[in-house]
Amino acid sequence: MTDKPRARDIGLHFSGKPGPHNTITDVPGVTVGFSTIIEDAVEGVHKGLCTGVTAIIPRGGSGSIQPVWAGINSFNGNGELTGGHLINDLGWFLGPVMITNSHGVGMTSYATVGWMVDRYKDVFETDHMWCLPVVGETYDGVLNDINARGVQEHHVLEALNTATDGSVAEGNVGGGTGMIAYEFKGGTGTASRKIPVAGADYTLGVLVQANHGTRDWFEVGGVPVGQHMRENLVFEKEQGSIIIIVATDAPLLPHQLNRLARRGSIGIGRNGSKGGHNSGDIFLAFSTANGQDNPWRAPDLMNLDVLNDIHLDLFYEACVQAIEEAILNAMIAAEDRVAVKPAGKLVRAINHAELIGCLDTTEKDRP
Amino acid sequence: MTDKPRARDIGLHFSGKPGPHNTITDVPGVTVGFSTIIEDAVEGVHKGLCTGVTAIIPRGGSGSIQPVWAGINSFNGNGELTGGHLINDLGWFLGPVMITNSHGVGMTSYATVGWMVDRYKDVFETDHMWCLPVVGETYDGVLNDINARGVQEHHVLEALNTATDGSVAEGNVGGGTGMIAYEFKGGTGTASRKIPVAGADYTLGVLVQANHGTRDWFEVGGVPVGQHMRENLVFEKEQGSIIIIVATDAPLLPHQLNRLARRGSIGIGRNGSKGGHNSGDIFLAFSTANGQDNPWRAPDLMNLDVLNDIHLDLFYEACVQAIEEAILNAMIAAEDRVAVKPAGKLVRAINHAELIGCLDTTEKDRP
Amino acid sequence: MTDKPRARDIGLHFSGKPGPHNTITDVPGVTVGFSTIIEDAVEGVHKGLCTGVTAIIPRGGSGSIQPVWAGINSFNGNGELTGGHLINDLGWFLGPVMITNSHGVGMTSYATVGWMVDRYKDVFETDHMWCLPVVGETYDGVLNDINARGVQEHHVLEALNTATDGSVAEGNVGGGTGMIAYEFKGGTGTASRKIPVAGADYTLGVLVQANHGTRDWFEVGGVPVGQHMRENLVFEKEQGSIIIIVATDAPLLPHQLNRLARRGSIGIGRNGSKGGHNSGDIFLAFSTANGQDNPWRAPDLMNLDVLNDIHLDLFYEACVQAIEEAILNAMIAAEDRVAVKPAGKLVRAINHAELIGCLDTTEKDRP
Amino acid sequence: MTDKPRARDIGLHFSGKPGPHNTITDVPGVTVGFSTIIEDAVEGVHKGLCTGVTAIIPRGGSGSIQPVWAGINSFNGNGELTGGHLINDLGWFLGPVMITNSHGVGMTSYATVGWMVDRYKDVFETDHMWCLPVVGETYDGVLNDINARGVQEHHVLEALNTATDGSVAEGNVGGGTGMIAYEFKGGTGTASRKIPVAGADYTLGVLVQANHGTRDWFEVGGVPVGQHMRENLVFEKEQGSIIIIVATDAPLLPHQLNRLARRGSIGIGRNGSKGGHNSGDIFLAFSTANGQDNPWRAPDLMNLDVLNDIHLDLFYEACVQAIEEAILNAMIAAEDRVAVKPAGKLVRAINHAELIGCLDTTEKDRP
Repeated sequence: MTDKPRARDIGLHFSGKPGPHNTITDVPGVTVGFSTIIEDAVEGVHKGLCTGVTAIIPRGGSGSIQPVWAGINSFNGNGELTGGHLINDLGWFLGPVMITNSHGVGMTSYATVGWMVDRYKDVFETDHMWCLPVVGETYDGVLNDINARGVQEHHVLEALNTATDGSVAEGNVGGGTGMIAYEFKGGTGTASRKIPVAGADYTLGVLVQANHGTRDWFEVGGVPVGQHMRENLVFEKEQGSIIIIVATDAPLLPHQLNRLARRGSIGIGRNGSKGGHNSGDIFLAFSTANGQDNPWRAPDLMNLDVLNDIHLDLFYEACVQAIEEAILNAMIAAEDRVAVKPAGKLVRAINHAELIGCLDTTEKDRP
Repeated sequence: MTDKPRARDIGLHFSGKPGPHNTITDVPGVTVGFSTIIEDAVEGVHKGLCTGVTAIIPRGGSGSIQPVWAGINSFNGNGELTGGHLINDLGWFLGPVMITNSHGVGMTSYATVGWMVDRYKDVFETDHMWCLPVVGETYDGVLNDINARGVQEHHVLEALNTATDGSVAEGNVGGGTGMIAYEFKGGTGTASRKIPVAGADYTLGVLVQANHGTRDWFEVGGVPVGQHMRENLVFEKEQGSIIIIVATDAPLLPHQLNRLARRGSIGIGRNGSKGGHNSGDIFLAFSTANGQDNPWRAPDLMNLDVLNDIHLDLFYEACVQAIEEAILNAMIAAEDRVAVKPAGKLVRAINHAELIGCLDTTEKDRP
Repeated sequence: MTDKPRARDIGLHFSGKPGPHNTITDVPGVTVGFSTIIEDAVEGVHKGLCTGVTAIIPRGGSGSIQPVWAGINSFNGNGELTGGHLINDLGWFLGPVMITNSHGVGMTSYATVGWMVDRYKDVFETDHMWCLPVVGETYDGVLNDINARGVQEHHVLEALNTATDGSVAEGNVGGGTGMIAYEFKGGTGTASRKIPVAGADYTLGVLVQANHGTRDWFEVGGVPVGQHMRENLVFEKEQGSIIIIVATDAPLLPHQLNRLARRGSIGIGRNGSKGGHNSGDIFLAFSTANGQDNPWRAPDLMNLDVLNDIHLDLFYEACVQAIEEAILNAMIAAEDRVAVKPAGKLVRAINHAELIGCLDTTEKDRP
Repeated sequence: MTDKPRARDIGLHFSGKPGPHNTITDVPGVTVGFSTIIEDAVEGVHKGLCTGVTAIIPRGGSGSIQPVWAGINSFNGNGELTGGHLINDLGWFLGPVMITNSHGVGMTSYATVGWMVDRYKDVFETDHMWCLPVVGETYDGVLNDINARGVQEHHVLEALNTATDGSVAEGNVGGGTGMIAYEFKGGTGTASRKIPVAGADYTLGVLVQANHGTRDWFEVGGVPVGQHMRENLVFEKEQGSIIIIVATDAPLLPHQLNRLARRGSIGIGRNGSKGGHNSGDIFLAFSTANGQDNPWRAPDLMNLDVLNDIHLDLFYEACVQAIEEAILNAMIAAEDRVAVKPAGKLVRAINHAELIGCLDTTEKDRP
């Protein structure tokens, strides 16, 4: 699907054992689709579009309308992931998880409602069923004329309708198209881990939309490479955000998934972020296990499997590892873009050779 | 502006001293506007629209883009009020508070971004400024073909552009157009209280979109009138929600406003609600005091007035009183509507004479 | 066990069907014990003690060390219920729930650890097991020389060791001994409800330590009796708190129990409280269903029953009803006490005849 | 005060500029005291004590009873820090912050109430004032006979009464005496950073009680030294916890301090922790600025300075840096201890030369 290099391809090493594609779609049933919007400036309309929409469909493989159990954590809430009240209260959500730019949240929500109503017409026509979509965002106003509100209904439908399992595109794609991470070009990234425990072999996958961090903070494998790679700086202060979606097929309950989502902060810290103020660092974890119909159609008494808490450290570790790798995957696959604000500013993708060289040199220089 | 009767007009009594209009607009600077959407069925398009949009603009009077300090509480999170992560974290929000139907959240958010970008063009063009609108919702799928997504961009702009101070329409208006409360016709309601304290004379105003409660639970002034008014029942279980917006000009900080918002549950309990499961009971409180520019333009060190906590009980009391009255105002002003699902079902507004009669009789019958 | 009158005995009416004893011990397995500490002033030691300790043992009947699933809500956090971080995170707690006065929390926690270690010696000696007791408090410094720290280890052990099922003492007993509610003598109260649903017959019981409210706010059955019963006022502002413990045998998960606990605010609102600022209004709900060993001894994969959310309204309603009744039970069973601060001030128990008379008269006077 | 080496003394490097003592007491007015309890086994009484109490007094220098503004974050709530409801609600707390072992919380709370009542006798005798101490804990049951409840009232008073400014003892001292971190001997550690901003020169200090992490996870300066230092392992899974106290003299409000506390997770992640399940990772941040009397004595309208949010990244960075250093300070200063459970097991302090050697070697081996 994509021949862009990934972090492992250029020689970076990570802990833990990834799933077959090393993507969030390694969690059985999860599908991912994108709409990538890149347009040159149109006089009087917009100054250039560089944005998009990402769709993660927890039960995309089966098409089932069953909710997934979920937990959410807002580590730094200067951003948006709609549906949070519902997830905190009910412990589940219905339908896809969408990610786009800050000013695309409304249209993405609008279009997702339409898609759900259309796709599950019989349920929406029969029951008093409502749809309150889960839509996250990060800000791409440097590379994209965000005020032009370039995300349109057909883009959202494209992301939803092209969602598949298997390999997942990374870098300048979907909601991640116009993102900037650690003052390099950022974007969409994904990774996964296998978690063999108690006779089962669970999978945990993450997808990030990485738009966070300042160069000063940037570390790879514990090496402060951002102190050495000083060209093409973009910001005075952190301006961005990161949305992290964590999927697993392990039978975890909402209060456990809430804890799992909370590990997002440890995950982003692996590359040196301090969770800057101008950042919506919001994390969502869901489990595809324990499928149940929505309450109106579920039995009076449900019966759920629950993994014993003593095994959670394995999931926390896998989650942190996969986040670290997914962020680097987003950056390694990303490609240079020229900004619209300030116009003409070049936002460079990280140079792979330079990174590797810097890692080698810095290592040797350390006392 | 409206000649619909209010709860006091039909003889109901309430505690506390209201402001001049007994509306949320009694808080200086706050303006309110509506778009009311009522359309007969159009073959192949929709089965009938009965919905709308409400705009509350905290600094509508001055037009300033200054944020307002705020706190939020999700008592029963089975609903949506976007912007919650941000308010929890920053303690403030920018721009208007919008309320609409569940499937109108996306378009309302989309259009509000457009309105903000247009209205504060210089700021959005100069700064790296983002807009993540605060949009609440309740479900009107009984009276409105909610799946047709009837709220369009021009409706949202109408609500925003017609916002004024002074009297506020109630009942079947704006976002409250298609609502049902305690199985009577519900809608939009408002009320206010004056709070003289420590030499100042503060105002607290509330606006509710009342779509909650079952008839069994309904009480007025402590009298369980719902046990006696048994005609035209609508539901087997609670289906609805209530959004409550609380405004004040008192200098309260975010952590105090969070506590104030939390009193919403006591307020809705006054009419007998237990906060039913199928309900998004979400409460937002903001203060127009301590106006400051957004962080990019505010001084390094701000200086804020803060009311001593020992006076908060007066605000809690005023908040509960105003919520109780605003809900009844919504119901008293409401007018009958015929449902689209189940089609033809009549949802009655509460009969004023019957209510007063029931209050008299029930009182006398009580042991 | 007690021949003090209860609210129903003096003619008050309540909704819902109580369990056999109308106590929290109607939930099978739950036991309750008290230590009541009343001492005259001792020169140089204390100015008079009027306090105590209440023990609620969720699995007191079986003596099992199995945790109970739980949820917690801090409606007004100006108080203490230790163990909250743990309950929020794990969704369960081990051992008893203790309630005492504000300055007795430490000794109660200390003694409870000793009791647990002694009672489950084999587990504590074998495993790396820790005990972080759940201890709530309300302030009794008006009637009790709270600064003398009168609660001693043997009092705590007495409450724990005398815990039984069956009827439960109310009023000036245990932790409730020195409490004041709505400026009448307050104390300990309890009530329960039966909840037949989906072929099962669940029980919900509550126990309150009622020390909250001002006379102005006091209502009974919706009648503002506090406006009429104006003698022996105690405070200028609310000084107190209320701790509410909710028990059920229904199979509810932590995120559902959290929602159930949250209904405490609606419950206390039934008697007119606005959740005053000087009040620790903290609510805990636990379920004895789905018994599991602690994680070190539980199986890798647990299997839990979960009641469908659509039935929760019945529990919310039962919870609110039982809280309303338990608070009045506490007040009706209470007995006059003379204060130590201000010394000599008489805090009256509510006069039953006067209350009934006031209810009758007020009803007739209402417009 | 102590001649134990600190992390910098053995050649470790850290970012940021520390205060004069590189301790939490660099924040003006903050004092710290300890009681260290080490006793050999006494037949029939205990199997050996190795525990203690730490007291951090925010206004220890002035002795003022003024509260400090505060925020709290429970990253992994499998532990205790009492006073959390109050801090979440009021945004401040009164009196000292105490840290001890898990089974010492009760006695520490009890004794702290006594100390407060005695120290501020006039206030407690005049006002209806209550004291709900802030007491944190981590588990030392490996090195200490925790079930013997060795912390007594005089220990707590010793910690409180010996609190001073200036240098602070580290390692096996106070509440940290019996702690284990990354399967090396852990304990108490501290560090500070200067934050020059907007013409002021603020200080941020942290004190940690480090009892967390598994060897596998342990990293220093980004180097996974725990993968190489494989001797004297202690656990199969993480058993411990970490309490972090963050102090600053910058004028931050409660909602800002809450965000600052939340950075604790990034801080602990710096040494490789994933926030293991069996861990109470609870973080408290307070500001000594904006001193105000308690509400009963404060003016009706307070006036507070508030630092603009745009400067918070400097505090987040300082907080993360100081936590990383404080944890290593705790470990570097720690000394070997022999366990009581399993009896005889040696828990080694980290060998300084071996650590430095491992850092050198590992660096060279990295690809």
